Amino acid sequence: MNQTLSQKRILHLKQDYERGFIRHCGFKADQVAHGKFRASLVLKDHHRQQDGFVHAGVMATMADHTAGYAAFTVVDPTFQILSIEFKINFFKPAFGRGLECRSTVIRAGRKVIVAESEVYDLGEENRGMTAKAMVTLMAVPGEALV
Amino acid sequence: MNQTLSQKRILHLKQDYERGFIRHCGFKADQVAHGKFRASLVLKDHHRQQDGFVHAGVMATMADHTAGYAAFTVVDPTFQILSIEFKINFFKPAFGRGLECRSTVIRAGRKVIVAESEVYDLGEENRGMTAKAMVTLMAVPGEALV
Amino acid sequence: MNQTLSQKRILHLKQDYERGFIRHCGFKADQVAHGKFRASLVLKDHHRQQDGFVHAGVMATMADHTAGYAAFTVVDPTFQILSIEFKINFFKPAFGRGLECRSTVIRAGRKVIVAESEVYDLGEENRGMTAKAMVTLMAVPGEALV
Amino acid sequence: MNQTLSQKRILHLKQDYERGFIRHCGFKADQVAHGKFRASLVLKDHHRQQDGFVHAGVMATMADHTAGYAAFTVVDPTFQILSIEFKINFFKPAFGRGLECRSTVIRAGRKVIVAESEVYDLGEENRGMTAKAMVTLMAVPGEALV
Repeated sequence: MNQTLSQKRILHLKQDYERGFIRHCGFKADQVAHGKFRASLVLKDHHRQQDGFVHAGVMATMADHTAGYAAFTVVDPTFQILSIEFKINFFKPAFGRGLECRSTVIRAGRKVIVAESEVYDLGEENRGMTAKAMVTLMAVPGEALV
Repeated sequence: MNQTLSQKRILHLKQDYERGFIRHCGFKADQVAHGKFRASLVLKDHHRQQDGFVHAGVMATMADHTAGYAAFTVVDPTFQILSIEFKINFFKPAFGRGLECRSTVIRAGRKVIVAESEVYDLGEENRGMTAKAMVTLMAVPGEALV
Repeated sequence: MNQTLSQKRILHLKQDYERGFIRHCGFKADQVAHGKFRASLVLKDHHRQQDGFVHAGVMATMADHTAGYAAFTVVDPTFQILSIEFKINFFKPAFGRGLECRSTVIRAGRKVIVAESEVYDLGEENRGMTAKAMVTLMAVPGEALV
Repeated sequence: MNQTLSQKRILHLKQDYERGFIRHCGFKADQVAHGKFRASLVLKDHHRQQDGFVHAGVMATMADHTAGYAAFTVVDPTFQILSIEFKINFFKPAFGRGLECRSTVIRAGRKVIVAESEVYDLGEENRGMTAKAMVTLMAVPGEALV
């Protein structure tokens, strides 16, 4: 496993990150390194729930997706990544101007990869970590998905 | 705890369900009963991920939100519901025309409520359960949130 | 996948269930069928925690192990089963005379198997479900473990 | 919240840690500080499962219990701690001479406390982290448990 990602691979992962539902949500890829992926979101009204806080689903989607892209950084480019499951704890309601998600691979097995995602509430002041997830992913050879 | 919901309460919960991020995602409330909530989604391209499957975040958001509204059916109308945490397993990629989510309260404690959400992949044929979540929620008196 | 287990396979799984740490804890295999495994425990003082309730670890061990044996009932006898992860919710303290655990496979993929375990608190009266777990398991060809 | 624990409180928590099921399992409290608790286990045959590896239930019990005692270090001594739920990932089979568990509180809310537990496999060489758990706990006034 090559621990230095090429600029081409980094660019590909950043662009690939922002598609489909993720584009619809507005998440942006920020930084990529071996075993790490960082993303952010500018919060809009359509990210909130009935009480005005950021919807738990926004944080869960960000945590899952960013963990998946952290996993992409530790596998061969021919592999796809699928989420087997995840668990997320919500520490306190988030209501700032943005969110930042920092995902880190904590176990890279041959098939099963485990990553953690920390979601931060960005506001006038840094309000700290608002949610944390543990995500179990599976690396699948690309053609096996078809 | 009154186990029969008024029509007014049912209508309120259905309307309240479809706000903010949930409206942005397109989830619709379908059926409401004591301890149960059912919702659905017509799938569009913006619900998919890089491989064309429904994004795990779509299913997670639906599972969390619908579980929360199942919890609303077992508490006094003055209470708010917050997600403490949830865990979701993805059984197989979903790629049908729609999703259905069925949430059921399996433990209604005084403060902590546990609900399960089953997400079904609806297509030409019923493709069965595609994800299942266990959600831990907290019932909070309305004014305590302000 | 043969959905009828031979009496020999059932007997083997029941005996295999009660080894090592499981014997040390005192769990007993009760019933075995395709996709299902049921076990019980007579509670002793050494199963309790500092407040006199059954220790969460007793219920978690029972939930994990019994889910694993439910998984054994849906794979070829040459396969081993390993726990990838599990999540367990504790609904209320258990303090009865015994526990019963009922595990059911809810998704049998080629590699990943998901099972649920419900733990019941048995007392003078049936006190109901005290904990519920969702367990993700992996089926591994026997020789691959060596 | 006083962030320096008295020697009396530390001694009490260490002794309180090793009771009931935990004594039966053989876990030992090692180090205690505000928000942190560290414990260890000398592995015996009765901690293993059918393949000779440490049973997942041993690691889960250690992770849950040690997280609970980390939570005790951040609450008033009159409070009790109950596990609401936990999730644990198993990274690789453990088969060394001992285990070490390091638990850290990552969120101390007024009622809900979240802690993480890392379980290390100790052998001839340090085999690294073998499991990691995220544990949701509730702080309950002592008399409320009776």
